[in-house]
Amino acid sequence: MGSIDTTLPHPFDPLSREEIENTILTVKKAHGDVYFNVVSLQEPRKAEMTAWLEDPVNAPRPKRLADVVVIAPGGKVYDGLVDPAKSEILSWEWAEGQQPIITMEELQLVEHIVRKDPKVIEQCKISGIPEEDMNKVYCDPWTIGYDERFGSNVRLQQALMYYRPELDNCQYQYPLDFCPIYNADKQEIIAIDIPKIRRPLSKAPAFDYHPAAIEARGGFRDNLKPINITQPEGVSFKLSGREIEWQNWKFHIGFNYREGIVLNDITFNDQGNVRPIFYRLSLAEMVVPYGNPEHPHQRKHALDQGEYGAGYMTNSLSLGCDCKGSIHYLDAEFPTRVGGVRKIKNAICIHEEDAGILFKHTDFRDDSVIVTRGRKLIVQQIFTAANYEYVVAWTFHQDGTIQPEIKLTGILNTYAMDPDEDTHGWGTQVYTGVNAHNHQHLFSLRIDANVDGPNNTVYVTDAVPGEAPVGSKENFYGNAFYNKRTKLATTGEAKTDYIAQTSRTWEICNPNKLNPYSKKPVSYKLVSREVPPLLPKEGSLVWKRAAFARHSVHVTKYRDDQLWPAGRHVPQTSGEPSRGLPEWIGDGTESIDNTNVVLWHTFGVTHFPAPEDFPVMPAEPMTLLLRPRNFFARNPVLNVPPSYASTPSQLLAKGQGVYDAADKLSKLAFEVPKEVDGEGVSGAGMVLVVRLMVLAARVVGASEREAL
Amino acid sequence: MGSIDTTLPHPFDPLSREEIENTILTVKKAHGDVYFNVVSLQEPRKAEMTAWLEDPVNAPRPKRLADVVVIAPGGKVYDGLVDPAKSEILSWEWAEGQQPIITMEELQLVEHIVRKDPKVIEQCKISGIPEEDMNKVYCDPWTIGYDERFGSNVRLQQALMYYRPELDNCQYQYPLDFCPIYNADKQEIIAIDIPKIRRPLSKAPAFDYHPAAIEARGGFRDNLKPINITQPEGVSFKLSGREIEWQNWKFHIGFNYREGIVLNDITFNDQGNVRPIFYRLSLAEMVVPYGNPEHPHQRKHALDQGEYGAGYMTNSLSLGCDCKGSIHYLDAEFPTRVGGVRKIKNAICIHEEDAGILFKHTDFRDDSVIVTRGRKLIVQQIFTAANYEYVVAWTFHQDGTIQPEIKLTGILNTYAMDPDEDTHGWGTQVYTGVNAHNHQHLFSLRIDANVDGPNNTVYVTDAVPGEAPVGSKENFYGNAFYNKRTKLATTGEAKTDYIAQTSRTWEICNPNKLNPYSKKPVSYKLVSREVPPLLPKEGSLVWKRAAFARHSVHVTKYRDDQLWPAGRHVPQTSGEPSRGLPEWIGDGTESIDNTNVVLWHTFGVTHFPAPEDFPVMPAEPMTLLLRPRNFFARNPVLNVPPSYASTPSQLLAKGQGVYDAADKLSKLAFEVPKEVDGEGVSGAGMVLVVRLMVLAARVVGASEREAL
Repeated sequence: MGSIDTTLPHPFDPLSREEIENTILTVKKAHGDVYFNVVSLQEPRKAEMTAWLEDPVNAPRPKRLADVVVIAPGGKVYDGLVDPAKSEILSWEWAEGQQPIITMEELQLVEHIVRKDPKVIEQCKISGIPEEDMNKVYCDPWTIGYDERFGSNVRLQQALMYYRPELDNCQYQYPLDFCPIYNADKQEIIAIDIPKIRRPLSKAPAFDYHPAAIEARGGFRDNLKPINITQPEGVSFKLSGREIEWQNWKFHIGFNYREGIVLNDITFNDQGNVRPIFYRLSLAEMVVPYGNPEHPHQRKHALDQGEYGAGYMTNSLSLGCDCKGSIHYLDAEFPTRVGGVRKIKNAICIHEEDAGILFKHTDFRDDSVIVTRGRKLIVQQIFTAANYEYVVAWTFHQDGTIQPEIKLTGILNTYAMDPDEDTHGWGTQVYTGVNAHNHQHLFSLRIDANVDGPNNTVYVTDAVPGEAPVGSKENFYGNAFYNKRTKLATTGEAKTDYIAQTSRTWEICNPNKLNPYSKKPVSYKLVSREVPPLLPKEGSLVWKRAAFARHSVHVTKYRDDQLWPAGRHVPQTSGEPSRGLPEWIGDGTESIDNTNVVLWHTFGVTHFPAPEDFPVMPAEPMTLLLRPRNFFARNPVLNVPPSYASTPSQLLAKGQGVYDAADKLSKLAFEVPKEVDGEGVSGAGMVLVVRLMVLAARVVGASEREAL
Repeated sequence: MGSIDTTLPHPFDPLSREEIENTILTVKKAHGDVYFNVVSLQEPRKAEMTAWLEDPVNAPRPKRLADVVVIAPGGKVYDGLVDPAKSEILSWEWAEGQQPIITMEELQLVEHIVRKDPKVIEQCKISGIPEEDMNKVYCDPWTIGYDERFGSNVRLQQALMYYRPELDNCQYQYPLDFCPIYNADKQEIIAIDIPKIRRPLSKAPAFDYHPAAIEARGGFRDNLKPINITQPEGVSFKLSGREIEWQNWKFHIGFNYREGIVLNDITFNDQGNVRPIFYRLSLAEMVVPYGNPEHPHQRKHALDQGEYGAGYMTNSLSLGCDCKGSIHYLDAEFPTRVGGVRKIKNAICIHEEDAGILFKHTDFRDDSVIVTRGRKLIVQQIFTAANYEYVVAWTFHQDGTIQPEIKLTGILNTYAMDPDEDTHGWGTQVYTGVNAHNHQHLFSLRIDANVDGPNNTVYVTDAVPGEAPVGSKENFYGNAFYNKRTKLATTGEAKTDYIAQTSRTWEICNPNKLNPYSKKPVSYKLVSREVPPLLPKEGSLVWKRAAFARHSVHVTKYRDDQLWPAGRHVPQTSGEPSRGLPEWIGDGTESIDNTNVVLWHTFGVTHFPAPEDFPVMPAEPMTLLLRPRNFFARNPVLNVPPSYASTPSQLLAKGQGVYDAADKLSKLAFEVPKEVDGEGVSGAGMVLVVRLMVLAARVVGASEREAL
C-alpha cells in the first residue's frame, strides 16, 4: 500500500514557475523563438481525476500537463500539449485561421506604434492635437471583435483613442473620434476608421478624481471615523496547499489566465459525511456588447475572458485596501511573451467577514430568544479590463449557500461627442463632450455539478397558481399555488430563459438520492435575479459570436476540455459557425438526465450610463445564489454558537443558565447619562432583567407600565 | 423675527410618553373605560409641514395630534383625533363594521382561553393530548383574515394550535390539526374548524435548536475565531433629536405602531445645495398568503402590518447581538390596552458598516491606481410576527443610493401531517409529521417622492433592442439597444408589472430640472429584482383583500392620510370592495404627471419550504435599490478619502507624493517566512516598490521576470 506524496503539487494546482519554465524550454528547443501566448495547466481528465480523488493513495496520480499556445514568426498559431516533467511535447497543431487570446504585453505595444504612425498623427491634427503632443495621445487597444473587411487570418487590434492634456489626467474624458486598426504581426497601423461627422477634441476643463484634483476642489471629506476590523486570534480557515477548509466547506482554489479563480472539488462535511456539491465552478466567459449601431461601434463587444483573460488582467491586491481584517493571498504566475515568467503577487485574496444575523427567533409569549451571527468566507480577485474593473467574489456561507458576486467599478468606455449633440438614445452625455454608450455586462457562470455524486438532472422550477379556478372545489378561495418542476431531459430542452413572473429558478438535483423528510431529490438551486437577455438581436454579430448569452441557462453533458462557452480561441471569431456551446449542444437531442451535467448560466446587468458614473463609477454589485434545497436533512448551522440564547424555563428560573456571548466590544454610539428611574440603563444584561420583569408582570390584561 | 424652540418635539417625532398619557386621560375623561388600540402621532398635514420645513422660524409649527382608536365595551370601535396639549378631542367617530389592529395583548389572551375551553380540550384529546397536559398546548392567534361565516362585525381570531412536550421544546414541530375561532369581545371560543381527515399529534422526537439541544447532539462548533469590529473614535453620524446627519444625508427617523420605522424629509447635501429626495419612506403594508387551498388554510394570509403592526411587534434589540460596532438605539412607546404606556427599549438600532470597495481603477499601462473603501449607514428594526422574524434594514450609501433590505428568519408556519402523507404540492414535509405550506412574503414599499422638489413624474423604463432589423442601414450589425422610457401619466397607466425581459425599472423624475450633462430629468430609479407577482388568482380572497399586491407598482397623487394601501382598519376586511389603493385610484383617470406622487412598490419572495428551513431558518435576504440617475452632475463620492492612490507622474517620481492610507490593522492571515530572494515580502509598501520596478522595467517586449 502506498502513501500520498505531499511534496507534489495537487493535480488542480496551477503550473508552478518551474513547470512553466520547463515547458517554455521544451518548446523553444523544438520550435525556436516563438511568442508565448499561453502556458497553463491542462486540467486532469475527469475520469482519472475522480478516481484519484476517491483513492489518492492507490489510484494513479493524474499527470501534470501544460496547455500551450504560441505564435510563431509570420503569425502562425500553434496549440500544443507538453509534459513539463519529461520535457516532452505530446501534441503540436497549427490552429489555422484562429487567433488566440491577446496578452497584456500585446496590448501595451499598440500605444507606442499608434503614436508614431503618420496617418494617426494626421488624424490627431484634424482632432486638434499638434504633432509635438503625440506623447499625450493614448489608446485602449481592443481585439477587433470581428470586422468582415479583415477576417480572422490577420491578428488585429482596434485602438480606441484618447488624449491627456497632462500626464495625470484621466484620458477617458478626452476621447478622439477615429479608430486605427493595428496589425499585430507586422506591428503597424493598417487602416483608420474615420467617422463622417468629425468631432474635435473636447475643450472642456479636466475633471479628475486623483487626490490633487480633489484637493483643488475643496479636499477630502474629514467626517469618516475609522471602523477597525481585527482578528486577534487569526482566521477560521485552514489551507493545505491551495485546498481550503472552512465551516464544513472544503475546496481547491485554482487560477488560470482565462477564467481567473477556479474552484474545484467543492464538498461540504455534513455531520461527518463529506458530500460533493460541485466538481468545478468558474466564470467561464463574458461579453460586454455596446448598443450604438453606428460603425465602428458594433465592434465594441468585448468577450473579456476569451479575448484578454480574467487571469492575465488580474490586479496585484494590497493589504488593507481591497479588503480588511486578516487576509491570505495567493500569487499567480504566467509566461511572458518571449518566454520568461511573470508573477502577479497577491492575485487572490481570501478572508472572512461577519455576515450579520444568521438566524433569530423570539417567542412573543415570553421573549425567550436566540440570536446567532453568521460568518462568510470570500475568495476574491479584481481584474482590470482597460477602463472597467471587475471585483469577483466567491462567497461561501455557513448554511451551504455559495454566492458569486461581481462588483463593477472603474471607468466608462467613452466616445467623443460635440457638446449637445443628439446621442439618439444610444448613449448618454456624462460630461461635456463625453458620450458613454449603452452596454451590457453578461457573464457565463459554469457549474460542473456533482450534487451528492456525479449523476445529476436539472429541473426548471416555476412558482405558479393552482390550475383550478376560483370558486371550484379544488381552489375555492383561489389561493392555491405551487412549485412546478419541469425536467430538462435534453440539451435542447435545457435552453431556458429567466421568467420573473414565475420567480423561475433551476434545480440541480441528484435523482438517485431523496431527502429523508421532503422525499424530494437532494438539490442545489440556482436563484438568480439579475438576468437580462442579450439585447443584440438574433442574427446580430454579437448574437453569433457570444452564443452562450442567448439563453439564461444551457445544460450540457460533461466532456473534458469543454470549458469555455465561446470557444477556445475567441478573438476574431466570426460567429459563423458559432463556437463553443452551440457546437457542443448540436441538434439538442443528447440526454442530460441523470448524468454528469454542466450548467451554464448567463447573468449580468444592462447599463445605461449617467453622469453619476463619471469620472469613475461607484461600485455596482450583482449577485446570485446557489442554495441547498432538500439537500440537508435540516438547517446545517444550528451548532454555530449564538450571541445570546434564553429558553422559557431559564426565564422562569430568573435567567439562570441563559447563554450570553454577546459581543462585549460593541459600544453605545453616544454616552447616555444614567436616568434616575433606571430606564436609561442599557446592554444585554439589563435587557434580560427587563425581559424577566415583563415576563413576571405579564398578567392577563395588566398594563405593562408598572412592570417597566 | 422668531426663533426655533428646540425644546419642542420635532413635528415628525412619535408621540412622547406625556402626549400618550394626556391623550389617554382626555379620552378616559370623555368616554370612560375603553380598550386603547392605537394612540399614535397623526403626521402633520403635508401643506403645513412643508411650509414649516421651508421656514421653521416664521411658519406656524404644525400641531401635535394623536390618532386614536379604541374599543368600547360591547366591541364598538371608535376613531378619534385628540390634541394632547389642550386635552381636547377634535373628532370622535364610530368605525362601524370595522376591526382595528390586533394588539400584542389581545394576542396573548387567546392561549389562556383556549387551554380552558372544553371543546378545545376535547379536540386535544382526539389528537392524543390528555386534559392534564393542556398547559402544554399553545396557540399562535392570528386575525381570522376573513371568513364569510362570521363577517366583520364580531372581532375574531383564529388559533393555530401547537403542543410542547416540554416547556423548552419548539412548538412548531408539534402542530395540531384543528383551529379554534375566538371571539375577542366575549373572550370565548365560538367555533372549531376540524378537518375531515384527522392527524394525531406527532410522535417524532423533538428536534430543537436551543443550546441544551445542541449540546445533546454534540455541542457548538469551536472553530470560529472572533472578528472584532470597533470604532475607537466613535461614529460618523450626528443626531439632533431624531434627525440624523451622515455623509451628506439628513433625515428624520420616526416610528409608529403600524409601519415601524418611518423616514421623513430625506435630503442630500450636494456640495452645499441641500436637495430633497423623498418626503417619506416606509414599509406600508405586507401580505403573506399561503398556498394550500384546503379549508381553513385559505385564511392564512397575514397582512402583518395592518393586522398586527410592525411597530407593536418590534423586538427590543441587544448590544453586540443584533449588530456589532458602535450602536445608537431609539426606544418606542405605545399605549397598553387599559391605558398605560409600554416602552420597547432599543426598538431601532443605528450603526455604520464598512461597505467594501466604493470605487477602484488601475491604469493597465503603469499600474497607477486608486482604491477607495465605502461606508454604509443602517437604520434597522426586527419584528416578530408569531413564527417569523423580519429584519428590516434601511441602508444608506455614500453615493446617494438607498437600499431597503429585509431578511427573513425565524420559524416556518407549520401544519400537522401524517408521516408520508401526500402534501399535494401545497407544502413540504420539513420534519416527520410537519407540513410547511407554500407561501409568499410581499411587501409594499411606500415612496412619497420629493425628487428635487415636490412635482415629480414616474416613467417606466425598459431595456429594448433597436427597432430596425439586422442588416438595415440603421442597425446593420443588430447591436442597437436603448432605454425606452414610458411616462405613467395617470393612476390607471401606472399599474405596472415587473418584466425581467426588459430589466424593467421605474424612474421618479423631476421633469422641471434637467441634468446639466445628460439633459435628462433628474431622477431616482427603483431597481428591484425580487418582484414575484401575487400568486393567488384574480378574484381570490387574498387578491381582493391585498389589492396593493396586484401590481409591482402603483402610483397615486399624494393626499394626507393615504398611508396604508390595504386601508386603515385591515382585520376582517372582506375585500368587497377592496380597501386602500383601489379606492384612491378609482377609475384611474387622475393625472399623476408633474405633481406630488406616491409610488407603491410590491416586492418580496415566494417560499417553497425545505428541510433546510427547519427548525429555524437561516436568514434569507431580499433587497432593492433607490439609485440616483441623472440626479447628480457627477459621482458624488469622489472626495471620500481613498485607501491608496497613485498617479502616473508620482510613479515616474519613484512614488513621491503617493497617497497611502491603507488600513494598518489588516494583517496577513498566516506568518509568511521571508524568502531570500525578496519575493515573499508583502504589504502595500512593498507592492508599491514592485509596481515601480515593473514600471521601470516595462520596456517593450522585455520579459518582466528580470524586473521581479
